[in-house]
Amino acid sequence: MTDLFWPGDERAEDHFTSASFLHAMTEVERVWLGVLGFDPGQGFPAPAVAELDVESGGNAVVGLVAHLRKHLDGEVARWVHRGLTSQDVVDTALMVLARDAAHAVRRDLRAQIGLLADLADRHRASGMVARTLTQHAVPTTFGLKAAGWLGGLLDADDDLARLRFPVQLGGAAGTLAAVVELGLDPDGAGARLARGLGLEPAAPWHTSRAPITRLADAAVHCTDAWGRIANDVLTLSRPEIGELAEGAGGGSSTMPHKQNPVLSALLHSAALTTPQLAATLHLAAAQVVDERAAGAWHAEWSTVATLLRRTVVAGSQATDLLVGLRVDTDRMRTTLEAAAESVRSEQRSMNELTGREPSAGYLGAAEAQVDATLDRARAMLKSEGAP
Amino acid sequence: MTDLFWPGDERAEDHFTSASFLHAMTEVERVWLGVLGFDPGQGFPAPAVAELDVESGGNAVVGLVAHLRKHLDGEVARWVHRGLTSQDVVDTALMVLARDAAHAVRRDLRAQIGLLADLADRHRASGMVARTLTQHAVPTTFGLKAAGWLGGLLDADDDLARLRFPVQLGGAAGTLAAVVELGLDPDGAGARLARGLGLEPAAPWHTSRAPITRLADAAVHCTDAWGRIANDVLTLSRPEIGELAEGAGGGSSTMPHKQNPVLSALLHSAALTTPQLAATLHLAAAQVVDERAAGAWHAEWSTVATLLRRTVVAGSQATDLLVGLRVDTDRMRTTLEAAAESVRSEQRSMNELTGREPSAGYLGAAEAQVDATLDRARAMLKSEGAP
Amino acid sequence: MTDLFWPGDERAEDHFTSASFLHAMTEVERVWLGVLGFDPGQGFPAPAVAELDVESGGNAVVGLVAHLRKHLDGEVARWVHRGLTSQDVVDTALMVLARDAAHAVRRDLRAQIGLLADLADRHRASGMVARTLTQHAVPTTFGLKAAGWLGGLLDADDDLARLRFPVQLGGAAGTLAAVVELGLDPDGAGARLARGLGLEPAAPWHTSRAPITRLADAAVHCTDAWGRIANDVLTLSRPEIGELAEGAGGGSSTMPHKQNPVLSALLHSAALTTPQLAATLHLAAAQVVDERAAGAWHAEWSTVATLLRRTVVAGSQATDLLVGLRVDTDRMRTTLEAAAESVRSEQRSMNELTGREPSAGYLGAAEAQVDATLDRARAMLKSEGAP
Amino acid sequence: MTDLFWPGDERAEDHFTSASFLHAMTEVERVWLGVLGFDPGQGFPAPAVAELDVESGGNAVVGLVAHLRKHLDGEVARWVHRGLTSQDVVDTALMVLARDAAHAVRRDLRAQIGLLADLADRHRASGMVARTLTQHAVPTTFGLKAAGWLGGLLDADDDLARLRFPVQLGGAAGTLAAVVELGLDPDGAGARLARGLGLEPAAPWHTSRAPITRLADAAVHCTDAWGRIANDVLTLSRPEIGELAEGAGGGSSTMPHKQNPVLSALLHSAALTTPQLAATLHLAAAQVVDERAAGAWHAEWSTVATLLRRTVVAGSQATDLLVGLRVDTDRMRTTLEAAAESVRSEQRSMNELTGREPSAGYLGAAEAQVDATLDRARAMLKSEGAP
Repeated sequence: MTDLFWPGDERAEDHFTSASFLHAMTEVERVWLGVLGFDPGQGFPAPAVAELDVESGGNAVVGLVAHLRKHLDGEVARWVHRGLTSQDVVDTALMVLARDAAHAVRRDLRAQIGLLADLADRHRASGMVARTLTQHAVPTTFGLKAAGWLGGLLDADDDLARLRFPVQLGGAAGTLAAVVELGLDPDGAGARLARGLGLEPAAPWHTSRAPITRLADAAVHCTDAWGRIANDVLTLSRPEIGELAEGAGGGSSTMPHKQNPVLSALLHSAALTTPQLAATLHLAAAQVVDERAAGAWHAEWSTVATLLRRTVVAGSQATDLLVGLRVDTDRMRTTLEAAAESVRSEQRSMNELTGREPSAGYLGAAEAQVDATLDRARAMLKSEGAP
Repeated sequence: MTDLFWPGDERAEDHFTSASFLHAMTEVERVWLGVLGFDPGQGFPAPAVAELDVESGGNAVVGLVAHLRKHLDGEVARWVHRGLTSQDVVDTALMVLARDAAHAVRRDLRAQIGLLADLADRHRASGMVARTLTQHAVPTTFGLKAAGWLGGLLDADDDLARLRFPVQLGGAAGTLAAVVELGLDPDGAGARLARGLGLEPAAPWHTSRAPITRLADAAVHCTDAWGRIANDVLTLSRPEIGELAEGAGGGSSTMPHKQNPVLSALLHSAALTTPQLAATLHLAAAQVVDERAAGAWHAEWSTVATLLRRTVVAGSQATDLLVGLRVDTDRMRTTLEAAAESVRSEQRSMNELTGREPSAGYLGAAEAQVDATLDRARAMLKSEGAP
Repeated sequence: MTDLFWPGDERAEDHFTSASFLHAMTEVERVWLGVLGFDPGQGFPAPAVAELDVESGGNAVVGLVAHLRKHLDGEVARWVHRGLTSQDVVDTALMVLARDAAHAVRRDLRAQIGLLADLADRHRASGMVARTLTQHAVPTTFGLKAAGWLGGLLDADDDLARLRFPVQLGGAAGTLAAVVELGLDPDGAGARLARGLGLEPAAPWHTSRAPITRLADAAVHCTDAWGRIANDVLTLSRPEIGELAEGAGGGSSTMPHKQNPVLSALLHSAALTTPQLAATLHLAAAQVVDERAAGAWHAEWSTVATLLRRTVVAGSQATDLLVGLRVDTDRMRTTLEAAAESVRSEQRSMNELTGREPSAGYLGAAEAQVDATLDRARAMLKSEGAP
Repeated sequence: MTDLFWPGDERAEDHFTSASFLHAMTEVERVWLGVLGFDPGQGFPAPAVAELDVESGGNAVVGLVAHLRKHLDGEVARWVHRGLTSQDVVDTALMVLARDAAHAVRRDLRAQIGLLADLADRHRASGMVARTLTQHAVPTTFGLKAAGWLGGLLDADDDLARLRFPVQLGGAAGTLAAVVELGLDPDGAGARLARGLGLEPAAPWHTSRAPITRLADAAVHCTDAWGRIANDVLTLSRPEIGELAEGAGGGSSTMPHKQNPVLSALLHSAALTTPQLAATLHLAAAQVVDERAAGAWHAEWSTVATLLRRTVVAGSQATDLLVGLRVDTDRMRTTLEAAAESVRSEQRSMNELTGREPSAGYLGAAEAQVDATLDRARAMLKSEGAP
């Protein structure tokens, strides 16, 4: 579905849509029936999104269970959902969606890490002026700038890699009383539910929301890292600077000559919105009360869906940005040479202090730093766990 | 469309959907053609949302204009969008949507103000215990509590009432150069565009985003006010307190006996999410740079759409909550009487100080305050400007 | 006190310090004694901040009242604080501080409005290139840019001008029961308390926090407006652009040649932090429950203090920025001329459409817009209510 | 220093004060002199906070270096700060403060984990009613509730335990050019600086702010976990429920009978404020541009200081809350028994389904879950790395 309010939203495909959420919740019920000893077969009756009354029960599960009970055969129908509570289904389904979205993001990060490793390596000797507080500072290389971007992505991927996607199974209030009452071994039941859905078994987390908040923090870490790349592209593609350009800029509705850095603008936009979404998820976690919070729990769903969709979209846009990025090394060199007097002022004060001869490029450990980051990138790209 | 992540989302109907956004943008182009001296006629060619490529131009207008030029007759086609820029169309369309959403919210506020005025009046003598920092404090009345809720809604409506919904007309960079180049009087053109869309003429606000941030602040003011009512209902409908109850609580997926305060939970949820959305809009306003910001502008659209939809939904839910609210005055009285010893401790210290006889109810100015708030409510309900 | 974490914090002087908060709370108690019919005289015993145990009572008032009772003479000592509750004292004192801080901000805004009116007028014909989405767009003037900044400040001042600073007088739970029990007329008592402190009489707002959230929203509106100016200065003072410069840039600790746009950096920094502080105040307002909220109320104090101090500091820094701002009209003109081909592309498409001759500057209504904004500025500067 | 706006602020002692920040920055300069081969001796000249002009250089380092150069002997004076830039000193000093604050928080977490492990064990059979969406749900035990709190703290401690506190050493723009120009081996110099300050050597992170944002996320994780405990205490200490009480409630300024749950209120307050502070730090990370960001970097200092001080304060308050917490098992049992009919409704539907006899307590796996959490707690308490 095209979203006119969020350009590129369709890149997120089925991640965290109502339909995929419903599918995941239905899968939780189907797998759970297997745990209860029933084979629900192929034709498991999934309702359409539009058929569900979500509000009157406070979530979609009451309506989903009613639908399933109506459309399944007698004995199976009676057992649907037994032992579960709404929160088990909703939270577990969110983890299914979260796992898939995180996987998609990591695939994009992997591609970007490869692209940036190549870029950093290729431009390890491409001199440019470093800028601090908007002003020319000292010489650097575009390779080191790319390595800096790369390091940020590696940090973000580290946070995604440590995420766990646990099943939530606690029953009405976290005691698993109904599961036990049905004669099931709670640990075994949880393990089978987790296995059937590709999640991890876990203690109930209905009131401890770290699986949500850690996911949120890791997602924001990604948009932080992409946002910073976008800022550099936006700045360096200004016509007065002209050191970088997007592969294919966006057109204007009225000015025929314009080539706008659209992908960078959209990445900057995403990075402005996600931290507050994560803050909402932390607030919700901090507002938990009782064995299920009235409101704090409900606030999570749309917020995490929006946050993760935006992260997937931004991840895809960032890959395109890096694929198409054009680097004007001539312009970089020209600007650096023109600024030679000022950007060597620090060097002169060092030489005065020591009496030593000035080094040629005043580039310090730039190349060694590029190498160190490339080592880190190669290790990540070779690792087994990565997507 | 049912949104499984936000129960009740369908209450917001067409407010701030992609389709209504596209319709509003198309209307801007159609009315503008009229300003340019063309009669686009009845069959103005509106594309479907799915036909538009939103991302490559950074917004939907480039694609919309291409569609219009393709489907309109020759001379008219050449004039479509002339004098405008994308931001004129997007910002003006957002104001059309904002005006309609604010109107819907005010209709609900008006209904709620009527309901609460009645409730405050009816329960002006219904004694209950006031609670501060969770503990019993002194006597109060439910009428005064309802008047307090009412005062909060009147404050929120005041902020909505002062909103202005200005047309944005600045051309490529706010100078209106193309409008003048076409031979139009810029003020006159702006006035006609505004009149044709039911908006106000205004100086270009492409880089001064107060129309967006004031809208956001007013919307959050509403959810603040509803959230506070919801908190009281959630607390007072706990079974140990039992002074209030929702008309029809939500059922549980596993516990047959439960009656959950669903509407209050959803209002509390909404109030947890909206302040951060408004913060994003302020951040976007503060990130403006140049004559059109790359990213800060783009971050507004989905954020304001989500914020306003949630406000409309919450407004409708709040009305239902108040319509159905059940007040147990017996329970209030019983609790107040049981707490008489402690909740009169302040009174005793006053009487010791003055030597005066204790008043019967120790209710101070509660009734006068109810009357003062009712006066305010009646004035609002009678005012012309209100929806 | 110098705050090493917030450069320039000392500009906020005594606004919202612990000492001024304590002074304001003490004043509330002193004036209230007058309302009760006592003349506390000149030597009212104010404790030092360090003497107060703030935590055990949850706020400073319990300790303050104990101090006053110990150091005042017998009969007066017995009457201290009678009729009030902690929240009356805290909230009213916050309004005293808020009024003073808002006044200081408006004084700076007034100065800036004068400076910008002059700048816009002086540069109404200083041509420069307008930039949209970082790229050259069409011609504009620096006068129009300055008028745009000015319009943003006028909007912000409008929001400050409508703020009200109400006394809070509700007693233990908003009923004014103790006030009445003491034999006072509650309206009269409130009016005298308000008059004695330079505030407005008002219905109790202990549970309706619009006086806090409107203050917060107006403060953020200011930092939004300054932030946007700072962004333009940061961008246009890049050496490759060089159209603006701060009067006296900051030095570097290691690079002798650098002139950093420090004031702009600090204004940008402030604008990144304030929206989330306002969000916290809205969350606190939305978390109100009972007749005094446990936690939501407490969250306001430090947040509003930080927000208002930062606003006062930023206001003062913004004035300095504008006082010292250097405008390089030669550089503006050179860049505009060099970009003539592209920034006239829109104009050419208009001329092709109409067959009319191109206008000389393609500046549209730029000058008329400057005039309109100057009119607005002059009206504000002449208004009585302004500081 | 007592902070009247944040009750209990003095619990944070010297963590993240201007004085300790200055001390840490001075230490960075002193240790760096050692790396440069100088022995600055005992009497290293530290300026007082009030002596520094922080604003004109944009941070305190310019002033600090000038002070040191003035007060050190000739040759040493010339070498002060050589090879460093302001950001090296500020960022490294922040990591010193962060490490100490995180250590203090972990000490409190350790104490709380011990207390809660004891509480969970002791109350493994203390039956109480579980509440979901404010209503009675099914039976549970207070031991399981305490184990739930405990699990949340263990999760939070896990996030603190993985934090790294890296030295920042990049020189003017991250190339370490001056360090190399001075003839130093950059890796060796970084390692010695880190060792001298008790930090970890690291690649320059001047533009990749994960050390700040991960710290922020972990801090918010703590306040989330404490906030949730506080919410339960606030709810369960309502007089109508009466299952928990703070050891020593706070008094009222006007109502002699009151015992307010002050510590819980303050923890709830803290948890409302911290997520938005972390959001600001993510925004700052996402706003990085160039080799040093103008504004985004500056926004971090006060925000991280406030966030960490509040976390330390809340940690200390949470320990006191748990030390003093009073549990009324009689009240719990009475309420559970009175609610037997409804809270067994789920059980009846399970028994109807299976035909099995109802279990006595309907407590499912509650005790096994307590044991599992206690195992986790014991492992943490025995671990070497923990403070």
